[in-house]
Amino acid sequence: MKLLYPTSLKLDVSSIEGFSVELKPYDVKKIIPEDLIDAEVLVTWTNSAENLKDAAARMKNLRWIQSLAAGPNDVLSAGFDTSKITVTTGSGLHDRTVAEHALGLLLNSARRFHEMRDYQLQGKWPGHLGGPQPDRPAGAFTTLRDARVLIWGFGNIAKTLTPHLLGLGAEVRGIARRRGVRDGIEVYGEDSLAELLPETDALVMILPGSDATRHALNAERLKLLPKHAWIVNVGRGTSIDEDALVDALEKGEVGGAALDVFETEPLPEPSRLWKAPNVIVSPHAAGGRPQGAEALIADNLRRFRAGQELKNII
Amino acid sequence: MKLLYPTSLKLDVSSIEGFSVELKPYDVKKIIPEDLIDAEVLVTWTNSAENLKDAAARMKNLRWIQSLAAGPNDVLSAGFDTSKITVTTGSGLHDRTVAEHALGLLLNSARRFHEMRDYQLQGKWPGHLGGPQPDRPAGAFTTLRDARVLIWGFGNIAKTLTPHLLGLGAEVRGIARRRGVRDGIEVYGEDSLAELLPETDALVMILPGSDATRHALNAERLKLLPKHAWIVNVGRGTSIDEDALVDALEKGEVGGAALDVFETEPLPEPSRLWKAPNVIVSPHAAGGRPQGAEALIADNLRRFRAGQELKNII
Repeated sequence: MKLLYPTSLKLDVSSIEGFSVELKPYDVKKIIPEDLIDAEVLVTWTNSAENLKDAAARMKNLRWIQSLAAGPNDVLSAGFDTSKITVTTGSGLHDRTVAEHALGLLLNSARRFHEMRDYQLQGKWPGHLGGPQPDRPAGAFTTLRDARVLIWGFGNIAKTLTPHLLGLGAEVRGIARRRGVRDGIEVYGEDSLAELLPETDALVMILPGSDATRHALNAERLKLLPKHAWIVNVGRGTSIDEDALVDALEKGEVGGAALDVFETEPLPEPSRLWKAPNVIVSPHAAGGRPQGAEALIADNLRRFRAGQELKNII
Repeated sequence: MKLLYPTSLKLDVSSIEGFSVELKPYDVKKIIPEDLIDAEVLVTWTNSAENLKDAAARMKNLRWIQSLAAGPNDVLSAGFDTSKITVTTGSGLHDRTVAEHALGLLLNSARRFHEMRDYQLQGKWPGHLGGPQPDRPAGAFTTLRDARVLIWGFGNIAKTLTPHLLGLGAEVRGIARRRGVRDGIEVYGEDSLAELLPETDALVMILPGSDATRHALNAERLKLLPKHAWIVNVGRGTSIDEDALVDALEKGEVGGAALDVFETEPLPEPSRLWKAPNVIVSPHAAGGRPQGAEALIADNLRRFRAGQELKNII
């Protein structure tokens, strides 16, 4: 039995030895070599579309794909026979790094570092952004202290982000399919959005990409946010109707948007988002650095060999 | 007995009533009106130099000045007779807001939001800053996780900042006049700088402005930092030799500098810092929003009336 692991990231392969499985490296940007085509397990990370399409067509013995991405849309759209092949995700490997980036985007939104940068590039001192300021002015998002943060998509990344927000003095609430109290945070269903959005200073979106989440934040829901509210998106770009967002920004109906993900990436040159007021464009930089991949692969490989249910099944 | 409070910030005056003291508002940008000139207590916040100079010359009964600034250099240079007048600072009122800004500057340094902004302004996608990245590459400061942060000036702001850094996975050490373990952090004396600076990914400076701290970070000490190290300054601008810093940045001897304070503010137009590589210019925006001023004034007013030692005496 063979497991193919990607050379697109540094893996400590010795941590996944001991299962009587042949561990073979492969290049994720090329088609699978003939001598590896009989592998039963494929670990993927930043594979090319061509590589995955080829693997789907030629790897007849494949029974399990372990993606290291949180949302392996690339694997799912490659044509694998998912009636025979189990796909597991890298959920959890990106929690800390995405949470750190989300915190950075929130602080940029509140503290206006992007505006300071614009002045710096002109050699001008933005005096209005510094010096004595009103403390927590009404109708503005200027600090996380006492800010009402709503996290839409309350999974592991949200749970990792929340303590940082609480530590800075924010009030945190969540939205998820499953309601209830999680890690001390009240998590509501989407049917509560009409109540919660108007009470939000910063909306953090961490929704996965799927048909169900497409344009979850649409024109109607944008109107429910206060005029000063910022939107941070570190989930998937498709969860926001970008045209509706730009309209809302241009009309001053929302405060701003710090976006790490977009409907189309790279963000196309004609996109209105580049120049819309109060938009921060981050190039899908939140995650992209899986942590603890070896532990996940080893645990799932043990389960696979033992005939047990795998972790992170899609 | 009269206490003059400033109208330059919103104060809940009812919180400082009850001491048999007349509480009188005054305009910090004008000279003190004749009917208030006999006051014994002056609370200051963003006073004009002219106002303070006038007060120093004309307020013969003055016994105590409560500044709401963390470092009341304006009061100290106005010519008050400090043999008769006690000056107390607003130390503690700015801890949370300065810590939040320092965290924002650190995350900007690590996550390169300023570079992303430069690309955004040109309508270009900075692909090299996003997508799959090596995790914790050697010789780079790309995340606070496992980053070695050295805080120079380990007072209340540092103590407020530290838990946020630890929460993100950083290793924190301090430098202060008084060495020892504080809130679980090892704090060293300046004689340990030669050992500590080479082991630093991010140096956070929170030194007060004084002759003793002038150019504390000089050419010699800059050379001790690793080439990838970032410097964040939220203390006073005079603590860094800016010419030496620009030299080090231009030669690639340090990674970058995110500065909220400068030797001269506003940063003068000819300053080389505007265009030096990897500099983030923030316009003295970290603090400027005193929090809990009433509680400090009330506590000190009680002590003053009781003949006890005041808090935050310079």
